[in-house]
Amino acid sequence: MKTKATFYHAGCPICVSAEQSLAAVLDTEKVDLEIVHLGEQSGRLDDAENAGVESVPALVLGGETLHINFGAALADLR
Amino acid sequence: MKTKATFYHAGCPICVSAEQSLAAVLDTEKVDLEIVHLGEQSGRLDDAENAGVESVPALVLGGETLHINFGAALADLR
Repeated sequence: MKTKATFYHAGCPICVSAEQSLAAVLDTEKVDLEIVHLGEQSGRLDDAENAGVESVPALVLGGETLHINFGAALADLR
Repeated sequence: MKTKATFYHAGCPICVSAEQSLAAVLDTEKVDLEIVHLGEQSGRLDDAENAGVESVPALVLGGETLHINFGAALADLR
């Protein structure tokens, strides 16, 4: 079964750069990757917060939340 | 050609957790992954610093340095 992965970002340069680097090297045989732009999909802010996301860009990978560098605080996207 | 990736860590729980999650889903057809324990390989601290690593765990992926969560500052490993 594939691991569910969600990459949350907000379109910031740091977000886009991290997304391009990381998404390119994830094994699509192992990971089912969804990319969520929280600036455009504000309905997903609660999902992100519930997964423990405090800032973007972040990758929620299975049960683990990985904050990758720092683009913007989640609180500032509301 | 494979992208060179170096995962720097220091054996901390946050480091190990991030390593296990992320290393498991990297595409080994695309990435040549090296894992460096800076606590045991202190000779690599300069490499890490030159790559822009400020804290561990961090993944240097091609030319980009991704700080993943926060385990320890690089300065505290010297």
